[in-house]
Amino acid sequence: MSCSIARSLEVIGEWWTLLIVRDAFLGVTRFDEFASRLGIARNVLTSRLDTLVEAGVMERVPYEEGERPRYDYKLTRMGRDLYPVVVTLRQWGDRWLTGEGREPVLLEHVTCGHQVTAHLVCDHCDEALVPRETRAVAGPGLSDPEAFLARARR
Amino acid sequence: MSCSIARSLEVIGEWWTLLIVRDAFLGVTRFDEFASRLGIARNVLTSRLDTLVEAGVMERVPYEEGERPRYDYKLTRMGRDLYPVVVTLRQWGDRWLTGEGREPVLLEHVTCGHQVTAHLVCDHCDEALVPRETRAVAGPGLSDPEAFLARARR
Repeated sequence: MSCSIARSLEVIGEWWTLLIVRDAFLGVTRFDEFASRLGIARNVLTSRLDTLVEAGVMERVPYEEGERPRYDYKLTRMGRDLYPVVVTLRQWGDRWLTGEGREPVLLEHVTCGHQVTAHLVCDHCDEALVPRETRAVAGPGLSDPEAFLARARR
Repeated sequence: MSCSIARSLEVIGEWWTLLIVRDAFLGVTRFDEFASRLGIARNVLTSRLDTLVEAGVMERVPYEEGERPRYDYKLTRMGRDLYPVVVTLRQWGDRWLTGEGREPVLLEHVTCGHQVTAHLVCDHCDEALVPRETRAVAGPGLSDPEAFLARARR
């Protein structure tokens, strides 16, 4: 499937995978800590971390050499670039599944000192992006524009 | 799990689910059109749409009454609020899995007329939000702050 959302979900669409990325943003790097925080079977965690490393989202950084080398798992630039996805997903969950006043985690903007609600803006006009003011148009990589955007163009 | 990301993934973490939401943002409303666009088995699609309706992300709006009523599937306000997640996920896939110049779909900001790259800003200071300038802090709904934020607070 050529869609970039579909391709993204092939990499991070599995439930645990994005929770591993979430914990990595919180500073977790060690296998044992991921395992205990997530309450995930070790073989499943191994498999998910392997997937993330193969895809380039995380990298293994050795912190102990020798016969049984040990690794920190760190987000690559590609992984850190998932930040807006994690932030917007958390906000959606806070709003619709958790409820105001019951947020487990809040985000503080260190540079301005306030609690943050992030919002999406257009990089040209700096105005907030809302669905009714945007339009999906065929890009250069679209194999079948007619089929894909049929509805969008009505 | 109290985390809002985990809760969100329980609703939309399944691969097909977010692709259904994507197509809904493109204007698709009919079962048959979802099925043919996604190339998904009808029983799987039925199950995913049921999940989305039960969760409140989509709603069934009858367009044909009678013995065999037919429905449009439409995003609710809760569903439309997933827009930033879909946009940031698409951008991540465009950048890291598809590549510049091969984007299948581009977003046009109707109000300013430009092709959009959306970015996340702080609602207080309007500056771009980047991981190193934000800090996760315990919210009112956190059951075990020490464990959850241990690393983040180092």
